[in-house]
Amino acid sequence: MGDTGPGILRVQADRIRAQIIAILLAWGMLEDLAETTAEVMTETDLIGVDSHGISMLMLYERMRTAGQLQLQARPQVVRENACTALVDGGAGLGHPVGVMGMRLAVEKALAAGIGAVGVFNSHHFGAAGYYARLATERGLLAMITSSARTVVVVPTRGAVPVLGTNPIAFAAPAKRNRPFVLDIATSTVAANKVKVYGLNDKTLPEGWVADEAGRSVTDAAMAMDYLYRRPEGGLTPLGGTAEMGSHKGYGLGLMAQILGATLTGGSFSPLREGRRTRADEPDNVGHFFMAIDPRAFRPPGAFEEDMDAMIDVLHATPPADPERPVLVPGEPEDLARAERLRDGVPIPLTLDGHVREICARSGAAYVLQGE
Amino acid sequence: MGDTGPGILRVQADRIRAQIIAILLAWGMLEDLAETTAEVMTETDLIGVDSHGISMLMLYERMRTAGQLQLQARPQVVRENACTALVDGGAGLGHPVGVMGMRLAVEKALAAGIGAVGVFNSHHFGAAGYYARLATERGLLAMITSSARTVVVVPTRGAVPVLGTNPIAFAAPAKRNRPFVLDIATSTVAANKVKVYGLNDKTLPEGWVADEAGRSVTDAAMAMDYLYRRPEGGLTPLGGTAEMGSHKGYGLGLMAQILGATLTGGSFSPLREGRRTRADEPDNVGHFFMAIDPRAFRPPGAFEEDMDAMIDVLHATPPADPERPVLVPGEPEDLARAERLRDGVPIPLTLDGHVREICARSGAAYVLQGE
Repeated sequence: MGDTGPGILRVQADRIRAQIIAILLAWGMLEDLAETTAEVMTETDLIGVDSHGISMLMLYERMRTAGQLQLQARPQVVRENACTALVDGGAGLGHPVGVMGMRLAVEKALAAGIGAVGVFNSHHFGAAGYYARLATERGLLAMITSSARTVVVVPTRGAVPVLGTNPIAFAAPAKRNRPFVLDIATSTVAANKVKVYGLNDKTLPEGWVADEAGRSVTDAAMAMDYLYRRPEGGLTPLGGTAEMGSHKGYGLGLMAQILGATLTGGSFSPLREGRRTRADEPDNVGHFFMAIDPRAFRPPGAFEEDMDAMIDVLHATPPADPERPVLVPGEPEDLARAERLRDGVPIPLTLDGHVREICARSGAAYVLQGE
Repeated sequence: MGDTGPGILRVQADRIRAQIIAILLAWGMLEDLAETTAEVMTETDLIGVDSHGISMLMLYERMRTAGQLQLQARPQVVRENACTALVDGGAGLGHPVGVMGMRLAVEKALAAGIGAVGVFNSHHFGAAGYYARLATERGLLAMITSSARTVVVVPTRGAVPVLGTNPIAFAAPAKRNRPFVLDIATSTVAANKVKVYGLNDKTLPEGWVADEAGRSVTDAAMAMDYLYRRPEGGLTPLGGTAEMGSHKGYGLGLMAQILGATLTGGSFSPLREGRRTRADEPDNVGHFFMAIDPRAFRPPGAFEEDMDAMIDVLHATPPADPERPVLVPGEPEDLARAERLRDGVPIPLTLDGHVREICARSGAAYVLQGE
């Protein structure tokens, strides 16, 4: 996984959390919102989603400097009934409004059986699965979708990208087992995965990246070109090729967009890009948070027992390779979390250097390393 | 598409509807439920989902004869609050309880902003997209999932199948455009598609079917063996291979199972098969129907306008092949429906023969052809 080696530090979670809080406060974020944001980002690093944790600080700094990101914003409920609500993120970071939206959906579901909360005028909120896990801690199921600002996914039959990697997360509690937590981008792979292949000059599998004629791009340098420099081509939707059902991944990406943004008043990135007139215009990312109380449908405990019975069947499924057992969604992240809580989160020296520079620029104390 | 030729009849929709009603009534179904079921099945044939329409009658006859399928059942609401409900399908066909469940979710969403209805003790309900379309006719978004009785999808890393092709449907209304309707199995392809390759002895694409070691099976005869005769191997989840993200399709299949069956009290097929003691035991398939009123989140019309703006962008996306424009989910079905309303639904002579035999056995009038 590239998590160990001479260029990699191991940093305990509480140091990461403290470092993120210090920077967010120096940037003018309200204290409670900074604590919430740091908690989400640190948990994201702990479960192994390195691309969405502390490494995002560089992007957040650029967006703040450009005036796009309003870190002092406090999210506001602008519309509400017994089981739905709409929240204005105030052009702030997605994490605090994400936690607020999920909690509101949870409270509504506990009272009414189901709750759905839409968020607009938000930005990046990290890993959708974090919010889904929050709901399972209250005994609820959750579904979350989000739009994304960067247009990089090419629709089936298309020559140019129109969608982000719009995530879908779904979680459900069990009794004996850890909760089921699915958290997926609706593209075949993340852009970061292509970047890792590009940095190592490794040939890509067929079907990850497509060019303007819909052909697979397997040359790493050319794939990077299609992702980051050329307007045509890009990541494929889940499925990869038309023959392998990429229209399904394309449709799921649109579902995430419609629930996350069309329903909430968030933007559709190709339209936003086309109309953008000022560099400080916020991205207006949208999110959708839904929670369901299983006790609205079944006697208390029955759902969780059936989840356990199903998970037991999945665990008992004979594996194709005896060394690699069948997993339940959420388990890779649970394993990563246990390991990283013990050994620390891997932080590349290059990232440590970026954090030091951000501290110097913002006036925040550098606390990632030291006694 | 194999829709024309010497072995294919073209039958108008009203004949198909009348034929299905005649048979269902002869089987003892209540008149209103038979009409609803025939409507769903006929619409499914009209939109081109041949595998889920009138061709299902042979299976329904076998299940009825075995005593599994209780066609005289009337579905009952067994639990209800302002925005959720649970419905007992009475071991009947899924179509009438599906329409009832979707309508109930729609009524609740119109009153409360969101409605979710679970169904248990059901059977096959045809194409999930049919129910999603019903909600858009009332101006609502819909999400539907279902479990499935036949275990045929192999989880990522597994050697044997544990899941059905558990569908997910999602729909949303627009103003100028036809509604967005996504209706997908969570496997890479349907078993029927493999069957067509098998009948034509055509080599399968890599990644559709996997063997007990997780290797792609591309020989058509061998693929049929893995699907219909051998206990190990089977269809892959959407994504196809681990490298192409099949864990995402596997997770989505489980999401469809959890919402459709774990939440509702439906069965998990591997457990049902393991515990089944009598041939007449119902399958206890479960479904989940959710409707959302966009007016709970946005001013009237704003959602539909933004749907149109997004669909316009998708239509204007430069295609990889100028002959094949980028489509919006639901459009292939809309095109098929227009064509089949005009030219009739293609009915292979073999299927016509089966229908004649069912008529003879049940005492129903044969009305598919004739003046």
